[in-house]
Amino acid sequence: MTHVFGRHFLQIPGPSPVPDRVLRAMSAQVIDHRGPEFGELGLKARAGMKTIFKTQQDVIIYPSSGTGAWEAALANVLKEGDRVLMYETGHFATLWKKMAEKLGVRAEFIGGDWRSGADPDQIEQHLRADTGHEIKAVCVVHNETSTGSVSPIADVRRAMDAAGHPALLMVDTISGLASIDFRFDEWGIDVAVSGSQKGLMLPPGISFNAVSGKALEAAKNNGMRRSYWDWQEMVEINGKGYFPYTPATNMLYGLVEAIDMLHEEGLDTVFARHQRLAAATRAAVRAWGLEVLCNRQGHESGVLTTVMMPEGHSADAFRAEALRHYNISLGSGLSKVADKVFRIGHLGDINDLTLVGALSGVEMALSKARVPHEKGGVAAAMEHLESTPAPGIDA
Amino acid sequence: MTHVFGRHFLQIPGPSPVPDRVLRAMSAQVIDHRGPEFGELGLKARAGMKTIFKTQQDVIIYPSSGTGAWEAALANVLKEGDRVLMYETGHFATLWKKMAEKLGVRAEFIGGDWRSGADPDQIEQHLRADTGHEIKAVCVVHNETSTGSVSPIADVRRAMDAAGHPALLMVDTISGLASIDFRFDEWGIDVAVSGSQKGLMLPPGISFNAVSGKALEAAKNNGMRRSYWDWQEMVEINGKGYFPYTPATNMLYGLVEAIDMLHEEGLDTVFARHQRLAAATRAAVRAWGLEVLCNRQGHESGVLTTVMMPEGHSADAFRAEALRHYNISLGSGLSKVADKVFRIGHLGDINDLTLVGALSGVEMALSKARVPHEKGGVAAAMEHLESTPAPGIDA
Amino acid sequence: MTHVFGRHFLQIPGPSPVPDRVLRAMSAQVIDHRGPEFGELGLKARAGMKTIFKTQQDVIIYPSSGTGAWEAALANVLKEGDRVLMYETGHFATLWKKMAEKLGVRAEFIGGDWRSGADPDQIEQHLRADTGHEIKAVCVVHNETSTGSVSPIADVRRAMDAAGHPALLMVDTISGLASIDFRFDEWGIDVAVSGSQKGLMLPPGISFNAVSGKALEAAKNNGMRRSYWDWQEMVEINGKGYFPYTPATNMLYGLVEAIDMLHEEGLDTVFARHQRLAAATRAAVRAWGLEVLCNRQGHESGVLTTVMMPEGHSADAFRAEALRHYNISLGSGLSKVADKVFRIGHLGDINDLTLVGALSGVEMALSKARVPHEKGGVAAAMEHLESTPAPGIDA
Amino acid sequence: MTHVFGRHFLQIPGPSPVPDRVLRAMSAQVIDHRGPEFGELGLKARAGMKTIFKTQQDVIIYPSSGTGAWEAALANVLKEGDRVLMYETGHFATLWKKMAEKLGVRAEFIGGDWRSGADPDQIEQHLRADTGHEIKAVCVVHNETSTGSVSPIADVRRAMDAAGHPALLMVDTISGLASIDFRFDEWGIDVAVSGSQKGLMLPPGISFNAVSGKALEAAKNNGMRRSYWDWQEMVEINGKGYFPYTPATNMLYGLVEAIDMLHEEGLDTVFARHQRLAAATRAAVRAWGLEVLCNRQGHESGVLTTVMMPEGHSADAFRAEALRHYNISLGSGLSKVADKVFRIGHLGDINDLTLVGALSGVEMALSKARVPHEKGGVAAAMEHLESTPAPGIDA
Repeated sequence: MTHVFGRHFLQIPGPSPVPDRVLRAMSAQVIDHRGPEFGELGLKARAGMKTIFKTQQDVIIYPSSGTGAWEAALANVLKEGDRVLMYETGHFATLWKKMAEKLGVRAEFIGGDWRSGADPDQIEQHLRADTGHEIKAVCVVHNETSTGSVSPIADVRRAMDAAGHPALLMVDTISGLASIDFRFDEWGIDVAVSGSQKGLMLPPGISFNAVSGKALEAAKNNGMRRSYWDWQEMVEINGKGYFPYTPATNMLYGLVEAIDMLHEEGLDTVFARHQRLAAATRAAVRAWGLEVLCNRQGHESGVLTTVMMPEGHSADAFRAEALRHYNISLGSGLSKVADKVFRIGHLGDINDLTLVGALSGVEMALSKARVPHEKGGVAAAMEHLESTPAPGIDA
Repeated sequence: MTHVFGRHFLQIPGPSPVPDRVLRAMSAQVIDHRGPEFGELGLKARAGMKTIFKTQQDVIIYPSSGTGAWEAALANVLKEGDRVLMYETGHFATLWKKMAEKLGVRAEFIGGDWRSGADPDQIEQHLRADTGHEIKAVCVVHNETSTGSVSPIADVRRAMDAAGHPALLMVDTISGLASIDFRFDEWGIDVAVSGSQKGLMLPPGISFNAVSGKALEAAKNNGMRRSYWDWQEMVEINGKGYFPYTPATNMLYGLVEAIDMLHEEGLDTVFARHQRLAAATRAAVRAWGLEVLCNRQGHESGVLTTVMMPEGHSADAFRAEALRHYNISLGSGLSKVADKVFRIGHLGDINDLTLVGALSGVEMALSKARVPHEKGGVAAAMEHLESTPAPGIDA
Repeated sequence: MTHVFGRHFLQIPGPSPVPDRVLRAMSAQVIDHRGPEFGELGLKARAGMKTIFKTQQDVIIYPSSGTGAWEAALANVLKEGDRVLMYETGHFATLWKKMAEKLGVRAEFIGGDWRSGADPDQIEQHLRADTGHEIKAVCVVHNETSTGSVSPIADVRRAMDAAGHPALLMVDTISGLASIDFRFDEWGIDVAVSGSQKGLMLPPGISFNAVSGKALEAAKNNGMRRSYWDWQEMVEINGKGYFPYTPATNMLYGLVEAIDMLHEEGLDTVFARHQRLAAATRAAVRAWGLEVLCNRQGHESGVLTTVMMPEGHSADAFRAEALRHYNISLGSGLSKVADKVFRIGHLGDINDLTLVGALSGVEMALSKARVPHEKGGVAAAMEHLESTPAPGIDA
Repeated sequence: MTHVFGRHFLQIPGPSPVPDRVLRAMSAQVIDHRGPEFGELGLKARAGMKTIFKTQQDVIIYPSSGTGAWEAALANVLKEGDRVLMYETGHFATLWKKMAEKLGVRAEFIGGDWRSGADPDQIEQHLRADTGHEIKAVCVVHNETSTGSVSPIADVRRAMDAAGHPALLMVDTISGLASIDFRFDEWGIDVAVSGSQKGLMLPPGISFNAVSGKALEAAKNNGMRRSYWDWQEMVEINGKGYFPYTPATNMLYGLVEAIDMLHEEGLDTVFARHQRLAAATRAAVRAWGLEVLCNRQGHESGVLTTVMMPEGHSADAFRAEALRHYNISLGSGLSKVADKVFRIGHLGDINDLTLVGALSGVEMALSKARVPHEKGGVAAAMEHLESTPAPGIDA
């Protein structure tokens, strides 16, 4: 290891740095998952997650990564041959679609250029064309982790309603939840998918399905053959705080602590903090003379910013240099933007000074890696931070 | 909480107490799951698990509970309508069979009375009858966590070979691995299923499939539609220490530490320690005038001991009293032995004095709960401990 | 290391095992010792310690071991040539006296046989003889850690009052505080000395002086040349939660947590728990046919029990065997009882089952080391535990 | 608390941030301080500290803050009425002198303006004047934590030799050790004083005296009445890894880990890293148009940089704003520079990006607090970092 001293800057768009409080909470001894103390923990975790999803309906917690919760969402309401409408916002939307196909679902994929979130109009058109209402679900990624674009979920719901289509609305908010605005009930979502290692600031290892009554009903006589991912048994047993199979106890310790922290700051303040840091990051990118991948105004993510490399320069060589020299991990470009972009995560346990430190790492590494750019990104970010009120502090 | 002070005795047959060293290892900050440091971690974890399974073949690590690894085993090699031979050793064998059925597999279930491990002769008979070799797999639970009986896996393999049957041998060693003898390659196992929260002394949250080349081959053009549990993609990417989806990083920190500890003591010493503590526990049960559920000599588990309650006495009321008064968690009877037995876990991070402390809790709680019994169980256990060499110390 | 697995039984009379909650509290990042957050911590720690000492007067916290707080007590109110009355309860009383002499104080030492606490009558006689009131302080050890005898401090105060003597009453309650009854104000104590690593269940590293107004006044124009130990500067700056030199921040985190735990259980319950476990330990010793060093009824300590070895047997050889074989640390005999006694600590973070585990270690190690004894100590302890109500549970 | 999320920037010149590795090491359970495992720990700690002080002579470890080690240094070799030469480098030199006076030592104080380290020529002159060799010791602060100036210790030794004076050379390197170059043996130091919470990156709570054979000899028949601080008993018992009174066990766990880390990076690289970060900090200060307190070239500290506030502006109001708004703790001005300067700590567990983050906090807080300054300090620091090789990375 080159870097013995000084904090590593983990600036990938998740896993995000785990706050010390959460790591400490997780380091408590494991308990009997069928005992009374666990019951209280389980109830607290589930109730807490409802406040984060902003739902009065059900939340299911899986011991799995977010990918598992994707599969759970599909497996409970879709069966082989079912049609589903998906939207190509980027790499993860594409992976979700491939998973659907692997599971035998016929996915219709609205193409995208990876530079914006989903377009509700196209979804509406597509649904209107499905006069037989064969499409069972519309699947949209809320915050596309591979690109840093956000889909307007409330507008997607409005589009579905305008089309008068009964499909379920399924939303991947793995990297959006608890960092940017998300409202399960108000936005009329049927199934939401999330994970622990992004806005919830836990290590990876548990994942979530928020499930509407309508989706739960649909699952009863539908879906694929399934066992581990089955909602029904979960919902029955969860009522008393327990789980049908051994839960990831220490992750739940951390989850409860993280939820407490989010409410201590206040969700609105959390969201505003992310937006402000994201804007500062974009200011830095512009000052460097580089381009942000998301080119649709209003769709820029509060969670991460994806930066396009100048033609002929390797993003991965740049990232390796940043890691080697400045002890900062940046996110790589995935599949069709591999080596062409890098991603700066600015989510979770982050504040003004950490962001500036991270951006200085990017700026200095651009030099080290001889990537053509203008100086001044850090200064531009600082200027943005100084000129905008800090949520929870100035307000 | 009644008990503010003094250590809780977590004497359920898993999750077992997590050693401080492991909890501390797990409390390290999360890292980039695509970075070079992670690659080393992943390789170390996988290589380490091969030494624990005693295999040169493949080990796959899932972010899931053991139940997920059950499903993975089934989903990769079986498809709807396939026939499989399973053996009713207890509650967990029954659950695995129900899972198989839920997934559409036709499970033939050799009945058992929950008081011993699987009988290789019956398996042989059953396989001989399957002259068309339609049975695709034989599924046996190595250490039945609900009863404390161990199946003689090497003998099962011999029985299969004697029958000349090509079925795969799939073994659930969720609670056996790293506590009692297990030899994947030598015993000719094709798929082994395990979890983190038993002999590996981690919190629940990751699970394992050890997979033979034959099983891997079978999976290629077989099995159910699957994504999360698919071996193929795992095996391809694991080679460099990475995973196809976000792994449970901090659990891997703990895993590597736990494997180090197991090798520091030496696996044979680990196994001998468990056997000796189990024998001491059975001596205590006999001295109390109570009966051990496992009544087949040689099948008694080194991991846990299940104790039958005297007729007319509630095991659950007894356990509640033990918890309330003595701050000890004992395992409950499950499904058909519910409230009729309790289980004493003696696995993982345990030594002579912890065991005696635990047994004294049982003995005193038997009195508190007015369960008819003789005194002297603790004394009998101590006598056993004194009269037998302590592995790694006396040897 | 022979013992990789299973909990070490730390049964010395301090340092006592640190509860996980306290270790976790202490593992938080250090903060600015002059910042506002620290001020709150400092105030909380000091206010909390007042509730533990049961005083409305001053408590001073030193970054030092208990030995430092001894020196502080002496240095602030005594000067070279001053006379002081001390009482030989055992090794630590003797060490305190040697320290006084090293510092130039003339210590008069009432002899004792190390088998009981201080005798108030002798103190009264001695003080009555000092008609010129030259004796500046009476120094008594509350709980003598080397022997397991407790001095009746309230009676010592009564004796001093009966003698009409104005000397200050200085009490070493390093190992008594927070385990057995202690009442600074009610008992009329002027200076109390304590440490972190006993009933407060912290690692060693901070120590305490509780100081009466009378003692503080005496210190103003008296005492030795001193700087680090000086009360005056402490008292002035402590008012706002700060310290005149850098405090042991992380120890204070732990202290605040430990005090919370003590009040969660309730101090009276804490004391009763210790008395009951001590009585169970003495029952075990009697059953072994061995003798408890403290032979004065009513003086037996709730904190530790010192056991006399049969003539011709080495206590240290026995302790080494107990450690090697059973992973239990017992306290050694000190100075004049070296190798003749061993000490069993039963203080702090301890409960019924931990105690039985520890006693089983002693009983089995007596056999291993071929020390003549009767079996049945553990059984006798269990009988005591069963037949007496458990404080906070049965009450 | 305003700041729930994001790392606090602890940029005071000690306590410095404790690395996670050290916090984890410290969170291990306490052990028997008289048992064999402790002996190994004690030996390791002492041997390790010798490599840090660069001495073959003795190192003594006290459970106390650095102030205690000051007192120990004085108490062991000086007695009431002894003359000692001290040098006013700043607040801490002044405090040490006051302590000496409080203890009855006659301190001669060479005045200074707090803007540089000690001047060897003045020391030489002073010693030459002491023809009777009455001065027993020369006391110099190596790194003056209140000002950020470093005294040239090797030159002080040369000056003493040039004067042919036999006084002991006593050096306070509380904040210098393990951050900037220090060579006990090579520089001919007799007593060095240090603490845990600076370059050693531990919480406060233990302190050190490195002691030459000459000083040890001097202490034998000299010094004040002393007990806690007495070297003799320490040195005797330390030989086997034990201590005359209960040591701060968990701090020693952390110490051993921290020493390992320092040697992993290599002491020379550690020193070079500090110098480079310090130079970057001074570049920032200059760019802001502010003045560094230390105005003697070559005396600027690698540990901290003290910045003078523009006339009429309160440093404390500025620091409060920095804390409130940017979650950064800066050091205050002490005594005669109170409210006139602030101090930026850049020591211990720090790297390029953390420093830039910290400096951005200063720069933005200067704006918030309306302190007149130029922009561009952060940019200047980055430029320095880019244009100079990073020790251990580029070399």
